[in-house]
Amino acid sequence: MTTEVTRTLARWVVGSKLADIPANVRHSGVCSFLNWMGCAVGGSQHETLDRAIAALAPFSGPGQATILGRNERFDVLHAALLNGISSHVFDFDDTHLKTIIHPAGPIASAVLALSEFMPVTGAELLHAFILGIEVECRIGNAVYPAHYDIGWHITGTAGVFGAAAAAGKLLGLDEQQMVWALGIAGTQSSGFREMFGTMCKSFHPGRAAQNGIASAMLAKQNFTSSNRVLEAPRGFAHVMSVKRDFNEITGELGKVWETALNSYKPFACGIVIHPSIDGCIQLRNEHNLKAEDIAKIDLVVDPLVLELTGKKTPQTGLEGKFSVYHSCAAAIIYGAAGEKEYADAVVRDQRIITLRDKVEAVAKDDIREDEAYLTVTLNDGRVLKKHVEHAIGSLERPMSEAQLVAKFDDLARETLPVAQADALRELCWKLETLKDASELARAAAK
Amino acid sequence: MTTEVTRTLARWVVGSKLADIPANVRHSGVCSFLNWMGCAVGGSQHETLDRAIAALAPFSGPGQATILGRNERFDVLHAALLNGISSHVFDFDDTHLKTIIHPAGPIASAVLALSEFMPVTGAELLHAFILGIEVECRIGNAVYPAHYDIGWHITGTAGVFGAAAAAGKLLGLDEQQMVWALGIAGTQSSGFREMFGTMCKSFHPGRAAQNGIASAMLAKQNFTSSNRVLEAPRGFAHVMSVKRDFNEITGELGKVWETALNSYKPFACGIVIHPSIDGCIQLRNEHNLKAEDIAKIDLVVDPLVLELTGKKTPQTGLEGKFSVYHSCAAAIIYGAAGEKEYADAVVRDQRIITLRDKVEAVAKDDIREDEAYLTVTLNDGRVLKKHVEHAIGSLERPMSEAQLVAKFDDLARETLPVAQADALRELCWKLETLKDASELARAAAK
Repeated sequence: MTTEVTRTLARWVVGSKLADIPANVRHSGVCSFLNWMGCAVGGSQHETLDRAIAALAPFSGPGQATILGRNERFDVLHAALLNGISSHVFDFDDTHLKTIIHPAGPIASAVLALSEFMPVTGAELLHAFILGIEVECRIGNAVYPAHYDIGWHITGTAGVFGAAAAAGKLLGLDEQQMVWALGIAGTQSSGFREMFGTMCKSFHPGRAAQNGIASAMLAKQNFTSSNRVLEAPRGFAHVMSVKRDFNEITGELGKVWETALNSYKPFACGIVIHPSIDGCIQLRNEHNLKAEDIAKIDLVVDPLVLELTGKKTPQTGLEGKFSVYHSCAAAIIYGAAGEKEYADAVVRDQRIITLRDKVEAVAKDDIREDEAYLTVTLNDGRVLKKHVEHAIGSLERPMSEAQLVAKFDDLARETLPVAQADALRELCWKLETLKDASELARAAAK
Repeated sequence: MTTEVTRTLARWVVGSKLADIPANVRHSGVCSFLNWMGCAVGGSQHETLDRAIAALAPFSGPGQATILGRNERFDVLHAALLNGISSHVFDFDDTHLKTIIHPAGPIASAVLALSEFMPVTGAELLHAFILGIEVECRIGNAVYPAHYDIGWHITGTAGVFGAAAAAGKLLGLDEQQMVWALGIAGTQSSGFREMFGTMCKSFHPGRAAQNGIASAMLAKQNFTSSNRVLEAPRGFAHVMSVKRDFNEITGELGKVWETALNSYKPFACGIVIHPSIDGCIQLRNEHNLKAEDIAKIDLVVDPLVLELTGKKTPQTGLEGKFSVYHSCAAAIIYGAAGEKEYADAVVRDQRIITLRDKVEAVAKDDIREDEAYLTVTLNDGRVLKKHVEHAIGSLERPMSEAQLVAKFDDLARETLPVAQADALRELCWKLETLKDASELARAAAK
């Protein structure tokens, strides 16, 4: 079963037709793209972008492609890098829960930039985008969790394969060229989890997008690589993981779709505190809670919550994202935990701090990651309870389209005028029917 | 001893002064640069370059930097990539024997391209080049051989650190920025040995050069990374190796110089067959041997020779490089084993084939890798013997300057007019005194 893994995958990508992809998968693709676009436009003003642009602008080629949410234009490779950074900089993008891959960043950044370089219809872009996600997540499935546990940032390491496959599909690579594209991509697979908390984290999906396009462009010119990058004894799965299951890559191709398993974050913070935030917002809305009425908030949560997000006195917005205490206070006061609720000023607001100090959290081993128990004690003695079985945003309780739209609007309207943001959103929903996919990029320029 | 590894290294690079580097090390640096330049100019017409240029030219920025041996000009990042490919495509570049790193490719390609973008003197270029080699080889020493054995092409994985350090030195990074530059570089460290035998092998040092420059440029703009990319539990040495010795990185900095241990290949093929070739050339010259006079050539060699280069009937030049039989036949007939002796036509020449078929090789376990025993039986019954204790090119028997010059001339004159090749060679020897290092690049343009 370990023969021809790379070739089997390449052959499937080359032969795939959009009509063979079920409607629900195509719809998931559109939702993933919309969510990605909102995150990228929303993140585009971050100083991470400013610094990357200052460093790399002198080396950019012609202004072939849009930097979303900004007025600069760069060559296709640099545009893919920069849009990939924007889309991940808030840690608010999509999640393939089986592998913790954030699938859209490397792929959408690649195909959208390419759509400004060559004729690409919306249907072709959606098709390539979905295939890229399949390649990326299947490769992730094959090596997760050992690969991630060692220290690889799987969004970068698996993402570069997906970006190469998606770009290669748009470029019309033949089977051998697609094999080479995966090989050239794989030999650039990189990115350490050690970089979490620094600007390099969002650099990873951006670089994966950029290197994926370059791999496909090189393969198109018959630049050769190994034919067995995935399965060879000195290839990706053996060198970068102690666990590998190639059946995850080649099994049930075209039958099981990872794209349909993509999920979207309702809250702009680590996924482990989402159940607590969800519970706070539900109780707030059901009982019209005011911060001033609350004596105490008790949480019973998965141990990971305290391990990863146990910061009691965060001082900055970024630290707030690693504080279940701040997150719950913001959820009660604002009824939300979007990017705005993690602004520095919000984290330092005295009303937030007062409520934050009333939150206590206890870990329990037998609680699932997407589960939480909340008890809110009011000053008048009432006790309100909430058991969140599955947090909003989980596969069991996905965000509704209305919630996705609200998230998009929140993010896009921070950067673009409301009318432009709304028009961009509608264009994203129409993705599959667009005659010229590059319209999307132009509609997101400032 | 595992604290502050990255910072200690960065601080040393930032604080280093050229005057602190011993004269013999500076001379090794000049020899390494000359050897690199010859390889790059000689390799510049290879189809690997043609394909990479066809793929990437549409995305290049302004023509800031020279592609050695050619008439194209590209932005600094792409020029570093392409010159890095040229310099490794013949597998004829330098070797740090302790780690099998080919040190110059990632570093020289980076600093030379930068010298066309900003004012850099020859002394500054040489200084940055030597520091880059130190960083690269020290990091290699820390993880070799486990890192290489797993399947990493160490010239790429360690090279990107060296390129970032060298570029960062030229850019005048401060200590914190140098730490970040190493971090950004490290999180891009990549390249599988699985790619050997394909165009991706020479892509590795090129991409390392390119990514190293980008890392330094980003760090100069305060793009952040981990402060502990080398030593952190999820950093380079733990994620990419099962062996690590951080003392190899920070021990005796400025006292032990890896640059002085660099070696140069006299023959354009795998280093394991160099002792046999060396012996053939010595016997040929001592006895004025003619192919027609030879009845039989018997070799006793290290087992690796047969494992790696045991091809009895090579059909192409590339296969010839993996044939100890062809290599010995060419050595007897031409007195050389440069790139020309591995042309397809030479491999298929009947005179070569006839002699090749008279070569027999036997492996013996107790023979060192740089050792060989040769017995040549002549048609007139005479028997000639030669014991090569250390092949030419080894640390014990380094190439003379005259041999380095002959190698350079052979390579450079294949691409450039003789007068231009000679002028370029003289400019390389004067490296340390050049007012403007970019003169070197311009002198190597076609």
